[in-house]
Amino acid sequence: MNGAAPGDGLLHAIDHVAVAVRSVEAALAYYTGVLGMPVVHDEVADDPGVRLVYLDAGPVTFQLVCPVRPGPVRDFLVEHGEGLHHVCFSVRDIPAVLAALPGQDAVTVFRGGRDRRACFIAGAPPGVRIELTEQDPWW
Amino acid sequence: MNGAAPGDGLLHAIDHVAVAVRSVEAALAYYTGVLGMPVVHDEVADDPGVRLVYLDAGPVTFQLVCPVRPGPVRDFLVEHGEGLHHVCFSVRDIPAVLAALPGQDAVTVFRGGRDRRACFIAGAPPGVRIELTEQDPWW
Repeated sequence: MNGAAPGDGLLHAIDHVAVAVRSVEAALAYYTGVLGMPVVHDEVADDPGVRLVYLDAGPVTFQLVCPVRPGPVRDFLVEHGEGLHHVCFSVRDIPAVLAALPGQDAVTVFRGGRDRRACFIAGAPPGVRIELTEQDPWW
Repeated sequence: MNGAAPGDGLLHAIDHVAVAVRSVEAALAYYTGVLGMPVVHDEVADDPGVRLVYLDAGPVTFQLVCPVRPGPVRDFLVEHGEGLHHVCFSVRDIPAVLAALPGQDAVTVFRGGRDRRACFIAGAPPGVRIELTEQDPWW
């Protein structure tokens, strides 16, 4: 709890927590309209094909992720319905983290939200999706 | 993203993200053994009847919640299996937040982890459980 990087510096800190939603507008009616969480960023990430809305939640952000076309998030919604979807950790160097973890050979690094490199690690426990993001922009 | 309290000061910041697990030991084999996240606190919260293990995740914590007797978390595991369970926001004054939100009359404030007041708000969207916690100890 002292801010030191866990995992020998692999995982730095939680960057955001994401909720999969079918309708951004309906979700904002609750999170902003009722709970009063301000929107700090709103974009469509083309490659994953999702709209990402970031809400202020202090040192981390609370992300709404809504598919704009077929893909994994739409599949999640069909299978599970709306709900908590993933937790994202900021790391200094995604390739270095993937090289240090077992079983990551097939992982794809993509251009995620806020123009950052991102990936979902393989082998996370059931019911948990773990994303990694770098603070630096896409290279 | 400037650290200002959202929701007119109602919800301050995310405090922790929780994963429901059937076995703390199996979960730690992954989160600490593979990802290297250090354990910073480990306790049994008597009233909810759950073991709570907090892992360092930077400015927020990553919590493993494992039932020690029948209750809502065990019910969650039976219904959904292991997975992301809730997100907890720190607030300055739980009764004030409950009074400011609609439909919270039946909410119970309990003595949560780390000897803090806590509650789960009513009316959260499907698939999302929202806990509130105060920074101050149980009164």
